[in-house]
Amino acid sequence: MPLITIEGPQLSKEKKRELVGALTKAASGVIQIPEEGFTVIIRENNPDNVGIGGSLLSEMKFK
Amino acid sequence: MPLITIEGPQLSKEKKRELVGALTKAASGVIQIPEEGFTVIIRENNPDNVGIGGSLLSEMKFK
Amino acid sequence: MPLITIEGPQLSKEKKRELVGALTKAASGVIQIPEEGFTVIIRENNPDNVGIGGSLLSEMKFK
Amino acid sequence: MPLITIEGPQLSKEKKRELVGALTKAASGVIQIPEEGFTVIIRENNPDNVGIGGSLLSEMKFK
Amino acid sequence: MPLITIEGPQLSKEKKRELVGALTKAASGVIQIPEEGFTVIIRENNPDNVGIGGSLLSEMKFK
Amino acid sequence: MPLITIEGPQLSKEKKRELVGALTKAASGVIQIPEEGFTVIIRENNPDNVGIGGSLLSEMKFK
Repeated sequence: MPLITIEGPQLSKEKKRELVGALTKAASGVIQIPEEGFTVIIRENNPDNVGIGGSLLSEMKFK
Repeated sequence: MPLITIEGPQLSKEKKRELVGALTKAASGVIQIPEEGFTVIIRENNPDNVGIGGSLLSEMKFK
Repeated sequence: MPLITIEGPQLSKEKKRELVGALTKAASGVIQIPEEGFTVIIRENNPDNVGIGGSLLSEMKFK
Repeated sequence: MPLITIEGPQLSKEKKRELVGALTKAASGVIQIPEEGFTVIIRENNPDNVGIGGSLLSEMKFK
Repeated sequence: MPLITIEGPQLSKEKKRELVGALTKAASGVIQIPEEGFTVIIRENNPDNVGIGGSLLSEMKFK
Repeated sequence: MPLITIEGPQLSKEKKRELVGALTKAASGVIQIPEEGFTVIIRENNPDNVGIGGSLLSEMKFK
């Protein structure tokens, strides 16, 4: 039953496939539950819908 | 206040109406809180964004 | 894969068993996915940790 | 690390900016953790995907 | 219906009361939905159950 | 900002430390965002609060 949810940026289908495989393998190895039991949900967030430190992620300047 | 969230496939508006009614009735009957107090949130997930057993749901073959 | 999460009050084990059965049956009937595919997570919330209309649920007076 | 998630209606970018700032400031003031440590996620829900008291929010009549 | 969830540290009941009031007032003012419609859920996380940058929050050294 | 939440069984502190490290490394490698930006939340679920296929996880017989 373990369920992994990841909130992050937009991803290509290739990256999603890779991410689901990597998260499942990593967690299964630690928790000692077979990979078959894991579900992963990927949420792609619009940077207008994320705030960091009180500012929109879409308007932050990274130096 | 009880809140029910369901993560599943794309649904028609008719199915959503039916689902909200059925989940609310089922939970209200067990928990003994009036139906008026329940909120339901339906999340429709793209099968590219769901992984089962390390593979994308959109790429699984069902036998 | 559908996943149902319910946020509500403390429940006895009997009520949890009944709730898991009732929510799964209700959703499976509407979405047309076999009951075997459903996961339910019950979260029991302390009424000190829930706010309704700006007040703690544990301090509301119901008339 | 504190994380605030808000489920609500569709919002303009201006409202999102204002909401992220207001929620972060409000929580930071109470919890006494600097604003820099806060993340906010805004989820805009289609009123067809929300149920209140067993009915779709999109079909409720407000008197 | 708007729902605000906050994941943070352990809080006293006084802080929870203050937090629920402050978040509800802040969001209601921006979204223009009456305070009565808001629900807040506070989740208090054990610092052993939070990871930042790959390390447990309970084992981080703050300089 | 990426946030990973994992719902699973009770874990020792050693397993939590290992899990946070493994999930962060796995996701950072795929998404190409530095590990420093990741938050992980571990939720340990009582098997009485999880349902699979309509039955409580605490009452399932594994053959």
